[in-house]
Amino acid sequence: MRPFAGVDIGGTMTKVGVLGENFESASFCTPHDKDRLILEICKEILKLSHGKTLEGVGVGCPGAVDPNGKVDFMPNLDFEDFDIGALLKRELQTNVAVTNDANAAALAECKRNDFSDAVMLTLGTGVGSGIIIGGKIYEGANGKAAELGHMIIEADGRRCGCGMKGCLEAYASASALIAQTKRAMEADRSSFMWELCPDINAVDGKVAFEAEKLGDRAAKEVVEEYIKYLGTGIINICNIFRPEAVIIGGGVSNQGEYLLGRLRNFCLAREYGYKNAPHPQIIKARLGSLAGLYGAIELIKYKSEERNERP
Amino acid sequence: MRPFAGVDIGGTMTKVGVLGENFESASFCTPHDKDRLILEICKEILKLSHGKTLEGVGVGCPGAVDPNGKVDFMPNLDFEDFDIGALLKRELQTNVAVTNDANAAALAECKRNDFSDAVMLTLGTGVGSGIIIGGKIYEGANGKAAELGHMIIEADGRRCGCGMKGCLEAYASASALIAQTKRAMEADRSSFMWELCPDINAVDGKVAFEAEKLGDRAAKEVVEEYIKYLGTGIINICNIFRPEAVIIGGGVSNQGEYLLGRLRNFCLAREYGYKNAPHPQIIKARLGSLAGLYGAIELIKYKSEERNERP
Repeated sequence: MRPFAGVDIGGTMTKVGVLGENFESASFCTPHDKDRLILEICKEILKLSHGKTLEGVGVGCPGAVDPNGKVDFMPNLDFEDFDIGALLKRELQTNVAVTNDANAAALAECKRNDFSDAVMLTLGTGVGSGIIIGGKIYEGANGKAAELGHMIIEADGRRCGCGMKGCLEAYASASALIAQTKRAMEADRSSFMWELCPDINAVDGKVAFEAEKLGDRAAKEVVEEYIKYLGTGIINICNIFRPEAVIIGGGVSNQGEYLLGRLRNFCLAREYGYKNAPHPQIIKARLGSLAGLYGAIELIKYKSEERNERP
Repeated sequence: MRPFAGVDIGGTMTKVGVLGENFESASFCTPHDKDRLILEICKEILKLSHGKTLEGVGVGCPGAVDPNGKVDFMPNLDFEDFDIGALLKRELQTNVAVTNDANAAALAECKRNDFSDAVMLTLGTGVGSGIIIGGKIYEGANGKAAELGHMIIEADGRRCGCGMKGCLEAYASASALIAQTKRAMEADRSSFMWELCPDINAVDGKVAFEAEKLGDRAAKEVVEEYIKYLGTGIINICNIFRPEAVIIGGGVSNQGEYLLGRLRNFCLAREYGYKNAPHPQIIKARLGSLAGLYGAIELIKYKSEERNERP
């Protein structure tokens, strides 16, 4: 079998990996220039493939990808209309498949856990998401699906960065958790959160959780509200997709069972479902920052299989 | 090609159809006894198939179906653990596929419109829904998916019949529209809605729409709120699935363009989506009460194809 290559383009670093008999990977600072980025990716892939002909290249990138592998918009890098699929195909003379990085991460976590149907939420600056159905990324009729972070869970609710109101992202992202932590600190000068983090500008997604563990009431309110809204999003995912699992990634997921156990209880008590409706597992992502790269490789693997199966 | 049979079990009437060279159908009152229902279905199918061997039977029924064709719960008929798939297979000695009636309707409307990826909402007593992906019903990892009526769009919102709060069904069903119409009438004795419907117990899903057309302010508030919440559900569907179309069925959809035009405007103004994200069509269902029967036949058609393709 020929080797597969994967690329995970990040706002800061880009990772490249080649899976042949062994797996080798490398990374470099993402150039803020499209041509330069293509060049660097090609150089790394050629280096790591040691002259072997590739079966194909999978790419995950932080942006909206159309079904032909063109990136319409990559906000972090300010790239628009970046036809990365066609450019890499031309330079490397091999098959290329491109997807959103959250989709790639979801695919990798799904394979890692041996699920064929799962949904992943990545809780970071925003709420990224990927939907895996039958072992493959669900992209929608024409790409751009799986924007679960912009599922409205509170009509007329909090303003979201996307311009709408009440999106899951406005409640369940790490940014939302931090904003609510700051608000609670400002409202309660006696909160223990001030001891843990005297500089309010340095508040991160851990402060409220840590203070809650120490019995702080204001922190408990922040965490319980956070769990309520994140749990509401997960309940919706269960009722819409009834997947095998909902996988939680991103910095906030490092709270581990302290967060997940409570999320499970919240969802089990409220999850709609007729008699015998299966309860999806709620688990933590395991691949960390490598999920995107592994997922890009899994993507090109099944795309190649599909191509080979065609008559 | 051998003929296909379809069955659409309703709380009141059951429809049976056989598609061979022609399409023939019949209906009967649904017996509130499982054995009797199986017997009646078999008799009608045998009559309509004129002695020909069937390729298979598709069944749509108002309940939660597991992946093996067993109905866990059929609330309208008070049937539990009804293994309709196995029973029909044994009696008719042919392949049987069973799904929820809203799924069957979605499949039929999707085929009728030549879509391969669409989501249907049926606005009736509840909000039924079906998700079609790649021309097939999406059932979830283990059945019971596609409960879009129980997607929470207002955390801590109105109480839903399912026991949860804030479900789409509590805002966008015909029942919810009727409840809000009554509330508005009680709050405003001078509303024109009283002229249209002097008996508040006779209020239906049309009263508010009709009074709004005549310029009634209380009615306008009811309709605008209804559109806001239904539109919120549709926006979520667009952002989650990015399908070709969202198809609206059920009694309320008979408001036609008066409702759909405003829904489209509401969604277009608010639908999240990066640059170039396709805008799903929002259209009215066209098959009416026959959708479930047609969908049951479409289901067994593709299940048979899948079986024939297997090596």
